[in-house]
Amino acid sequence: MKLCIMGAGAVGRSVAELAGDYGHTVTAFADSSSAVVDAGGIDVEQALAHKDEVGRVGEGDPADALGADYDVLVEATPTTLGDAEPGFSHVEAALQNDRHVVLANKGPVAERYDDLRALERESEGTVRFEATVAGAIPAIATIEGLDPDHVTAVRGVLNGTANFILTRMATEGLSYEHVLAEAQDLGVAEADPTFDVEGTDAALKCVILANVLYDGGYSLDDAEVDGISDVPASALELAREDGRTVRLIGEVSGGEVRVGPRLVPEHDTLAVTGTQNIVQLETEHAGRLNVSGRGAGGPETASAVLADVGRLPDK
Amino acid sequence: MKLCIMGAGAVGRSVAELAGDYGHTVTAFADSSSAVVDAGGIDVEQALAHKDEVGRVGEGDPADALGADYDVLVEATPTTLGDAEPGFSHVEAALQNDRHVVLANKGPVAERYDDLRALERESEGTVRFEATVAGAIPAIATIEGLDPDHVTAVRGVLNGTANFILTRMATEGLSYEHVLAEAQDLGVAEADPTFDVEGTDAALKCVILANVLYDGGYSLDDAEVDGISDVPASALELAREDGRTVRLIGEVSGGEVRVGPRLVPEHDTLAVTGTQNIVQLETEHAGRLNVSGRGAGGPETASAVLADVGRLPDK
Repeated sequence: MKLCIMGAGAVGRSVAELAGDYGHTVTAFADSSSAVVDAGGIDVEQALAHKDEVGRVGEGDPADALGADYDVLVEATPTTLGDAEPGFSHVEAALQNDRHVVLANKGPVAERYDDLRALERESEGTVRFEATVAGAIPAIATIEGLDPDHVTAVRGVLNGTANFILTRMATEGLSYEHVLAEAQDLGVAEADPTFDVEGTDAALKCVILANVLYDGGYSLDDAEVDGISDVPASALELAREDGRTVRLIGEVSGGEVRVGPRLVPEHDTLAVTGTQNIVQLETEHAGRLNVSGRGAGGPETASAVLADVGRLPDK
Repeated sequence: MKLCIMGAGAVGRSVAELAGDYGHTVTAFADSSSAVVDAGGIDVEQALAHKDEVGRVGEGDPADALGADYDVLVEATPTTLGDAEPGFSHVEAALQNDRHVVLANKGPVAERYDDLRALERESEGTVRFEATVAGAIPAIATIEGLDPDHVTAVRGVLNGTANFILTRMATEGLSYEHVLAEAQDLGVAEADPTFDVEGTDAALKCVILANVLYDGGYSLDDAEVDGISDVPASALELAREDGRTVRLIGEVSGGEVRVGPRLVPEHDTLAVTGTQNIVQLETEHAGRLNVSGRGAGGPETASAVLADVGRLPDK
């Protein structure tokens, strides 16, 4: 397939680097200020070197990328809330031109799912978004395989930064502030960690799962969200004395979406450690299924994007 | 889709019972001595009641089922080794008639994979076999999504009976013979438990995984297999003093297939308990992925069969 990659952060870069390995050609690649386009396949190495040197992938206009010759738009610009722009407009342009769309950007899938599906219905293109939930973990494909009608609940640990902080607090007996600073030094938490520690990122993923389970209708406003910044070290100590620990759990069930710190048994399947994620599915006929692995990271998330590209129908 | 179900054991029965729920119609259903065929859809409840009362699903000849009008053959007769008959001939007949085939029977996929793929190449039908490995766990679909070329190893706990026995031996300090008898009473182990406790069943699953990873060439003869019947209670006791336990681990890596009892950390992801199964994938770009759940059972395995039916291309 010919790929147009919008976004040159960790995920966009990794998709560009790995595409050839999966038999695809990158014909357009854009960041927020520039683009490089070549119908025969761009020189990915050169574009990334250019980005490292001068801060942009090429010398063209970003809009050139959307007008290029491609089969699949890979939307990997940063997640934005509300109108989910500019990601949503990129997706709209691609679908209106009957191209496929694979998203790593959570915004359009969490905030404007019904709009997205409406555009898809009018298009010959297909929309997929495995990479928006839990990185390398095939949550969406597994739900599709089981059939969303036969999945009764989904819960899990969906934010690696929050899980790293809770794990360290529990094992070292340290305060939230201390571990957050440490996580920022290690690059596990961002300078502004709000999105991760207040539960917003996990909630967006749960909203996407709710849209898949209930065939749309959900956005961030429908989620009840509580973060981990108020969890005291003493709560983790008390939990441990009782053989339990605290995890930031997202849950979709009975039409509700909730994210918050919860007590779980210390060695429970849900109590993954460090930056690991886990998705737990309750099914009507197949019992409980658990899928765990790396929930973030450039190559990990790119591998979910490329799995989606592989699942697209031939047009 | 119109389904022809060959085999009326736990899996075949459950596929018949659940098919309607997934939008499919059963047009033929056979056990080893009889068949019921109706192009408009058989009465599943009646066929199963007939089976319970007189030991056969209907009054027709089993061969009638293969000649019926259907889109997908569901091969759910018992797994046999060597020539994998009669399952293999059922599959051959379906593919020669350009029908799709979904297998729950491990025999043809483990013992005659290359023959199976050769028949598929000559057919307009597609062959799928998610249900042959670890019941409800989507092992094959997950490997396909990642692309087998980028999966470097697969290991896991693939036999619930052996795992139940090892778990009970470890937690209760009981002998193999004692726990086996208990498992037989509970219906977790069969009267002749050889297939499970000697590692054959786990090995067949590993051989199937090897065929997927390495594009064929493997049969049971290529596996190095060791069972659990010689594991003494004292070994589990020693392991526990060291924070470890014993699991029957199957592994496919570096072109080799091995099954045997292995020491694993007591709270390791691989140390699932009771009849649970787990499949652990090592990937080139996405780190390690773990998928755990129910590895056996009628509805659980039927759900994998029906997921495969859902993944078939429209012809």
